[in-house]
Amino acid sequence: MDPSRALNYAHAHRPRFVSELKQFLRFPSVSSQSEHAKDIRSCANWLAHHLRSIGLDRVHIVSTRGNPIVYASWLRAPGRPTLIIYGHYDVIPGEPVRAWKTPPFTPTLKNGNLHARGAADDKGQLFCHVKALESWLRTERSLPVNVKCIFEGEEEIGSPHLTSFITRNRRALRADAAVISDTRMLAPDRPAISYAQRGGLRAELKITGPRHELHSGNFGGAVHNPVQALCEIIASLHDAHGRVTIPGFYDDVRPWSDKERAFMARTGPTDQDILQDAQVEQGWGESGFSLYERATIRPALTLNGMAGGHYRHGSKSIIAASALAKIGFRLVPDQDPQKIAQLFRDHIARITPCAVHSSVHTFAPIEPALVDRSHPALQAAAFAYKKGFGAPPVFIRSGGSIPVVNTFQQILGGPAVLMGFGLPDDQIHGPNEKFHLPNFYKAIATSIWYLAAAAKLRSTQSLQKKMPWRTP
Amino acid sequence: MDPSRALNYAHAHRPRFVSELKQFLRFPSVSSQSEHAKDIRSCANWLAHHLRSIGLDRVHIVSTRGNPIVYASWLRAPGRPTLIIYGHYDVIPGEPVRAWKTPPFTPTLKNGNLHARGAADDKGQLFCHVKALESWLRTERSLPVNVKCIFEGEEEIGSPHLTSFITRNRRALRADAAVISDTRMLAPDRPAISYAQRGGLRAELKITGPRHELHSGNFGGAVHNPVQALCEIIASLHDAHGRVTIPGFYDDVRPWSDKERAFMARTGPTDQDILQDAQVEQGWGESGFSLYERATIRPALTLNGMAGGHYRHGSKSIIAASALAKIGFRLVPDQDPQKIAQLFRDHIARITPCAVHSSVHTFAPIEPALVDRSHPALQAAAFAYKKGFGAPPVFIRSGGSIPVVNTFQQILGGPAVLMGFGLPDDQIHGPNEKFHLPNFYKAIATSIWYLAAAAKLRSTQSLQKKMPWRTP
Repeated sequence: MDPSRALNYAHAHRPRFVSELKQFLRFPSVSSQSEHAKDIRSCANWLAHHLRSIGLDRVHIVSTRGNPIVYASWLRAPGRPTLIIYGHYDVIPGEPVRAWKTPPFTPTLKNGNLHARGAADDKGQLFCHVKALESWLRTERSLPVNVKCIFEGEEEIGSPHLTSFITRNRRALRADAAVISDTRMLAPDRPAISYAQRGGLRAELKITGPRHELHSGNFGGAVHNPVQALCEIIASLHDAHGRVTIPGFYDDVRPWSDKERAFMARTGPTDQDILQDAQVEQGWGESGFSLYERATIRPALTLNGMAGGHYRHGSKSIIAASALAKIGFRLVPDQDPQKIAQLFRDHIARITPCAVHSSVHTFAPIEPALVDRSHPALQAAAFAYKKGFGAPPVFIRSGGSIPVVNTFQQILGGPAVLMGFGLPDDQIHGPNEKFHLPNFYKAIATSIWYLAAAAKLRSTQSLQKKMPWRTP
Repeated sequence: MDPSRALNYAHAHRPRFVSELKQFLRFPSVSSQSEHAKDIRSCANWLAHHLRSIGLDRVHIVSTRGNPIVYASWLRAPGRPTLIIYGHYDVIPGEPVRAWKTPPFTPTLKNGNLHARGAADDKGQLFCHVKALESWLRTERSLPVNVKCIFEGEEEIGSPHLTSFITRNRRALRADAAVISDTRMLAPDRPAISYAQRGGLRAELKITGPRHELHSGNFGGAVHNPVQALCEIIASLHDAHGRVTIPGFYDDVRPWSDKERAFMARTGPTDQDILQDAQVEQGWGESGFSLYERATIRPALTLNGMAGGHYRHGSKSIIAASALAKIGFRLVPDQDPQKIAQLFRDHIARITPCAVHSSVHTFAPIEPALVDRSHPALQAAAFAYKKGFGAPPVFIRSGGSIPVVNTFQQILGGPAVLMGFGLPDDQIHGPNEKFHLPNFYKAIATSIWYLAAAAKLRSTQSLQKKMPWRTP
């Protein structure tokens, strides 16, 4: 199918598309904080209503034990390939709100960027495909391929119910490839397709000492301090070479060939690129690896935050009763999140000083994922980028973790096509997150082209329209 | 003067005294949080009004650049000795409020204890003397000695304006001894007079890394983490023997004779006593010293609290931009707080990893203090305790820091008489702080006896009534 009319439509309607994205971004659909349950629901309703309005056929809000999945399909092209389009409408908290120049849930246009929590991760990227679908449907009254949209509300908490949903509905969800736009390009003119994702695991480590806060004058120097003990434990988790000290942590880390590392060095960001993206002066981490390698083919243990005792303004002379650290592991092939969880728990139990107690809670395991970059569905994506951005994409590895990549590949069998439209300086998960509007427009065009290009893939799936959903 | 009628009066009015103390405790007079400035003022007004109502002569609310000092005097006994009675009406924050069984500023009676922030530290102890003065004045229409009450509102933030006030008004404030009740007894039947106080110094240590929060998937393992760096720094501040590692930290620590250490072992709390008071199973700290020694004649560096990154509920995959630690030093003779501040700043600058930046702010220096326990003013206090509590006091060292002790001794020349009425389990600075009511009653009797006993001290001061105050 010729995408010309769809492309023209998308170009003509840019201002409305932006204004609709702003509506979408207004919902504080924070999945990790229960007080936002209602916002999650409102956001899902808005999205479902929007998908209906652009002409998708079957739009469902599928309940789960957690946040609902918004599903929409258009299956009127029998014999043609079927694509899953995946995205997530949930976001991480807008905190610390003080660090934002404009409020996180008041989308604000500035210098060609749209600022809001979720602007790039992932509402903005998800919306590129929605607008591409609209452009086809409004101009051709059909799509070049069959499409099944799965927009979930729990990606930022590790997609606890999505795998179960996909497994239980694996027949209804059959597809030839799954398109996921939740990653980054290297620069506005350097598109990228991610062919590897790190896995993950979250842990909370709590140290308890005295039953109550104690006066630090009366007891300072004579009673151990849970906050200090936690610092000591955290400090001991890396050695002087930036390596994680948990025994066995690296046992299953896959070594990569010189050829693959040379490919990475040729195609991926340089140390300098990464330092510039992070806006820091120098790197850190495991010696013997480039920063790109440290962030992709090497595992990491990151302290996402910790607190204990009195840290607000004002003074308080105390020894605290407890302290908490939140830790995120990034795992690589062939590390198993469950095994890492056990190694971590055992190690903490072993190294906790005897004057305090520790407890560990691990959750949100995500397996690392790899995609075959020679698959036709990925080559079609490369073609679409060339059309949409005027430049061929490079194939890169991502340091992040998208829980669903493995689920799609393992359960549905087709490749995950990670077409990223974000930029390195989008500050996802940081304050003043933004989406670069030129990327928004080019991404819509790229998606329009991809839907056309995907029509040439070999269809291996027969369409099944069985309903209702088996809910997880 | 015969204290019988004053003692009877105090006994007869116990219920009213408790109800008045409850009024006093209702003011959230938190000196370290500016939002409580109004509460501080209301509390000072209430106290001044109360001091007028019991018959003290000159009651002033003396403005300073910080919180006001409530001053009251009764100087109608020419030729007799003059006592300063010192206390503080400010308190530390009631946080974390969740940890309190009853709200910190809603005084609550339970099992013979009055629970509230400030119940023991220091409103309750201060009020014992106020009620003793009232008992004398209401029954005898006079006091056995001249009295100058100085009740300040900045003790918990290091008394930044009190020294200046005392220095500028040193003539008007002349006295033979200064009574301070802001310390503890060993047990309800084991009164104690503190003859040593540790000094102090506060420090805030901030570590900054990336300009903004970064996504820990994209950068975890490749960019240093300010929270982790802070943990590493904190962890490195003590060695495996519980000693502070700041070079030069122990240089000026006075070694004590075997005789003094034997006196301490004989009179002070045992390790077991201290563990029981702290409600912890085992001690911690510098090897080679008892827990009592570690908390009194040895200096300490205590992490009062720290925070960085995301530590609230919910998850956030980030590398934080900064982290903050609040540190409290407890210093001993002959350490100089200013010198320690410099050593600390230099050390932190030296050990900060090059991938992050550090900044140090030190404040609230307090010099360590010693009192001559053979001074007649202290022997008179021992006599009063015997009368009030039915047991002679032991002379003990305190681990805490009362900034004014040195000020009184150095500027006014008389000894500081540290008559403590608190108990080890009063949980001062912790949640559910309390004052044991039997101690309240016995402390009032002790103060009544002390006023009588102090009449026999040699008066070295001529009374001066010069006003107005030179305000700091």
